[in-house]
Amino acid sequence: MRARSFFISTLKEAPADADVISQQYMIRSGMIKKLAAGVYTYMPLGLRVIRKIEKIIREEMVRAGSIELLMPMVQPAELWQETGRWEKYGPELLRIKDRHMRDFVIQPTSEEVITDVARQEIKSWRQLPVNFFHIQTKFRDERRPRFGVMRGREFTMKDAYSFDRDEEGAGKSYDKMYEAYQRIFNRIGLVFRAVRADTGSIGGSRSHEFQVIANAGEDVIAYCPDSDYAANIELAEASSMLPGRAEPKEKMEKRATPGQEKCELVTEYLGIPFLSSIKSVVLAADRTNEKGEPLPAKIVLVLLRADHELNEVKAGHIPELKEGFRFATEEEILAAFGSKPGYLGPIGLKGDVAVYADKTAADMSDFCCGANEEGYHYTGVNFGRDLPEPTVMDLRNVVEGDKSPDGKGVLRLQRGIEVGHVFFLGTRYSAPMQANFLDENGKPQPMQMGCYGIGVTRVAGAAIEQRHDDKGIMWPDAIAPFEVVICPMNYAKSEAVRAAADKLYEELLAKGVDVILDDRDMRPGVMFAEWELIGVPHRVVIGDRGLKTGEVEYADRTNLAEKTMVKVEEAAEFVASRVAR
Amino acid sequence: MRARSFFISTLKEAPADADVISQQYMIRSGMIKKLAAGVYTYMPLGLRVIRKIEKIIREEMVRAGSIELLMPMVQPAELWQETGRWEKYGPELLRIKDRHMRDFVIQPTSEEVITDVARQEIKSWRQLPVNFFHIQTKFRDERRPRFGVMRGREFTMKDAYSFDRDEEGAGKSYDKMYEAYQRIFNRIGLVFRAVRADTGSIGGSRSHEFQVIANAGEDVIAYCPDSDYAANIELAEASSMLPGRAEPKEKMEKRATPGQEKCELVTEYLGIPFLSSIKSVVLAADRTNEKGEPLPAKIVLVLLRADHELNEVKAGHIPELKEGFRFATEEEILAAFGSKPGYLGPIGLKGDVAVYADKTAADMSDFCCGANEEGYHYTGVNFGRDLPEPTVMDLRNVVEGDKSPDGKGVLRLQRGIEVGHVFFLGTRYSAPMQANFLDENGKPQPMQMGCYGIGVTRVAGAAIEQRHDDKGIMWPDAIAPFEVVICPMNYAKSEAVRAAADKLYEELLAKGVDVILDDRDMRPGVMFAEWELIGVPHRVVIGDRGLKTGEVEYADRTNLAEKTMVKVEEAAEFVASRVAR
Repeated sequence: MRARSFFISTLKEAPADADVISQQYMIRSGMIKKLAAGVYTYMPLGLRVIRKIEKIIREEMVRAGSIELLMPMVQPAELWQETGRWEKYGPELLRIKDRHMRDFVIQPTSEEVITDVARQEIKSWRQLPVNFFHIQTKFRDERRPRFGVMRGREFTMKDAYSFDRDEEGAGKSYDKMYEAYQRIFNRIGLVFRAVRADTGSIGGSRSHEFQVIANAGEDVIAYCPDSDYAANIELAEASSMLPGRAEPKEKMEKRATPGQEKCELVTEYLGIPFLSSIKSVVLAADRTNEKGEPLPAKIVLVLLRADHELNEVKAGHIPELKEGFRFATEEEILAAFGSKPGYLGPIGLKGDVAVYADKTAADMSDFCCGANEEGYHYTGVNFGRDLPEPTVMDLRNVVEGDKSPDGKGVLRLQRGIEVGHVFFLGTRYSAPMQANFLDENGKPQPMQMGCYGIGVTRVAGAAIEQRHDDKGIMWPDAIAPFEVVICPMNYAKSEAVRAAADKLYEELLAKGVDVILDDRDMRPGVMFAEWELIGVPHRVVIGDRGLKTGEVEYADRTNLAEKTMVKVEEAAEFVASRVAR
Repeated sequence: MRARSFFISTLKEAPADADVISQQYMIRSGMIKKLAAGVYTYMPLGLRVIRKIEKIIREEMVRAGSIELLMPMVQPAELWQETGRWEKYGPELLRIKDRHMRDFVIQPTSEEVITDVARQEIKSWRQLPVNFFHIQTKFRDERRPRFGVMRGREFTMKDAYSFDRDEEGAGKSYDKMYEAYQRIFNRIGLVFRAVRADTGSIGGSRSHEFQVIANAGEDVIAYCPDSDYAANIELAEASSMLPGRAEPKEKMEKRATPGQEKCELVTEYLGIPFLSSIKSVVLAADRTNEKGEPLPAKIVLVLLRADHELNEVKAGHIPELKEGFRFATEEEILAAFGSKPGYLGPIGLKGDVAVYADKTAADMSDFCCGANEEGYHYTGVNFGRDLPEPTVMDLRNVVEGDKSPDGKGVLRLQRGIEVGHVFFLGTRYSAPMQANFLDENGKPQPMQMGCYGIGVTRVAGAAIEQRHDDKGIMWPDAIAPFEVVICPMNYAKSEAVRAAADKLYEELLAKGVDVILDDRDMRPGVMFAEWELIGVPHRVVIGDRGLKTGEVEYADRTNLAEKTMVKVEEAAEFVASRVAR
């Protein structure tokens, strides 16, 4: 490609509402253009990146035996009603009406449609297993779209769906996809982790997220450097940080702590260790009677060591909270505890409160907690002596230094961006939609399903979050809009430069290198800055000075300070060898 | 590809609502699957066809200098309001609201968004010309979706948009696209015509449709076999079929024609030639006063020779009808003519009626027409003598045998399916959206635009309408789901067959042939019928009988009766040479 035949349009400044570096650089480099909140046009440079990502995904999906089809963007409500998602899916599901006032959705994902295809097409065990995928535009009507293409409303997703006759087969299908994903992200050239993830409300029992490591990531990953353990912090299992509960040494004592509403302040005020304090988190589950009329919410008290954080996914496993929960209101807290927040604790509860302690909290002795009276805390409190033994569960986020659940070391944390997800679905969709096949005995059985997604457009954003500097993007070779840029100095006027640049361009094309020749004849500084922003990984500068000694200058985007002079006649070979294949 | 690793699922019968052969065959061969009215899933076989069409289009667009980008499917209403299409576009435009109740549309086309991109990106004449395209899902909420993928609601379209500094430049951009379209449809391998088309309500002055010739086509094309003249019948210019008007020979006479309400019946009843009769077509244009209150409609009488058909596009050029028109109601006819339909004519009109005669009708003398009195017609009528000279215009459809407007012969008619359209837009979008550039003198000028569409999915349907027999589809090589199918007889049990089939398969793959090996081991008749339905253009049958003499059997889908026996060792070379490249 020659730059004059292409469309390049960079900006000096990113718009004020670009809230992450990937969004700023994509907009500044002219890869995307905002059309509406969370809706972007992919400009020619950006589309090249997306197409390269799609190509790698497509090739690896086909290699893994998945078969490509294309399901519609506009899907009838009836199918979504069959699985109950028409009601359950939040306002992210864009529900629309056609001219005849029939209900449709704009697909955020395609489980319903593929299950409908499968129940029509697959009659016999002989047709299984089968795996379908498509790469298609999706829409999720995010309340607050942000992070550019990483949490947009319209985006491109690859979604695949496997159908198997039994769980064992489904497990094999899952493993194949897991391996395909490993190959995909390796080929794309990103540092990533496959982490165990919560199976959430979709149900099913196996789930891995593929997380691109980046400081700007929304997800926190817990991993063990000494083993292959890695899990989303939502899921990572936390054990007690204490060797067990020590014998009580202190008497329980009610102490005045006027105005001290946080554990840090209370312990400092009382002159006791911060880690001897337990914090009380009050959750509420809404309830209704048989007629659907609201009843007072069920109140649950969670006890955590002062330095620990509630893990909301784990809290969702508390029996009283399984149907959903929220934080309790101040009014509910007053009714159940007789005190305002800041002085709460498990002793002397007024209302019907279920008490759960995290494993570490449950191992504490002689601890400090609120007295359920404004301005007072207890110290020297002990379970079993001063209050009943609580129900013990894993309820907190792991922290750096926690024991790895596989017993092979301690956990570390890092941030990641979820770009892929593999998920065992079981019969979550096939059962309500009656997607059955006949087994060898002619007996109908529901198909065992898995679903496998990759956020195509999000991969582009995550790649930038992982690979950039203050000059711009540093694309991995495999998904760069161009692999090589030739920057000729004084292209219009210097015949020698033009001849050398044109020749190198043709030679690289002949070697199958995706090269762009910048024939726009801009000032060198402006030209370099533009390509550094765009992030083309390999650059060749051709100027009269170098040509005097028969040389051109090569530099790698990730190490621009190190410039290599290469003989003109060896340049094509040299540059091609630097491009990762 | 091996059939067992692919997904093939054919049906014996097409569903009752499949109303054209392409739809029946696409459904029966398992290429598409209906999800909702006018909304289809592209199954793996069908998607291969679509991808091949897209690839040809993409390659030729890039060759013609168009630059690919990707505009969103969901577009904000504001842009559509700027051009007035938010109000003017009918209910085919699917208008939706997001969760914040903001108005959006699902794109049926992208003029607004690309013009918005251009007005932001293009500041100077130096950046022009430029041409952008994308291949993206579109939605048009057709009232009555039909003809399968040819008039669906969700479909894939390639739309391109050119921007030029002046009309001359826009003309060159138009010509480039016209030539690219010629190459595209030639490469796809279809018989087509580029025909002049009405520029309709979009405005602009140049427009060509690319029509795939097929009897099932909705459009009628008039063309001259002795020149390159071709036009949509909506546009094809009709001249008078008479050498000029003859002198009156008869006296006007009022004749009783009881119950004879059609020209055929009247002339037969009166024993006069059918072609001496003029028919009266009454049109009405609704009007309102300044306050927007309805006024009585303006009535227009169009006179046509009895054998001719009104051309509604041409009627739209009648000054009184330019803002839109409809056929008059019986009530309006009674008020204006004093007679019910069947006896209408241009003599003795009661109301305020504008009279227009088609060129042929205007050249008639001694003609017959209704007397505006039930049960009576006039004969021997002459313009100028018995009634005023009418205003003369071209108002009819051309017929076979009409003079070609270029004077080079006579016209013939055939049916076609519109698969592409090139259109000069001028400043229809750039003016209201203020998409201006600065010319050499620093003066802002609106960009001159063109738009260029190809219905990707419709091409597949049109190809089938043009190329099929009673067994199934006959794809052109370039867009067939596979170029070659190898049908081994008794693949599972005959080692010789299996070895020969596998070898030929590998050899063809090595030659870059898109081949499928049917390793499903079906009965020969069933297997052949399936591939004839699917329409793979080249078939090789390998069986033990042929192998005894070292031969395999080759047949072309368009001529299955002619089978060629080919030596095993020459088979790959032979088959590859038969595939069009």
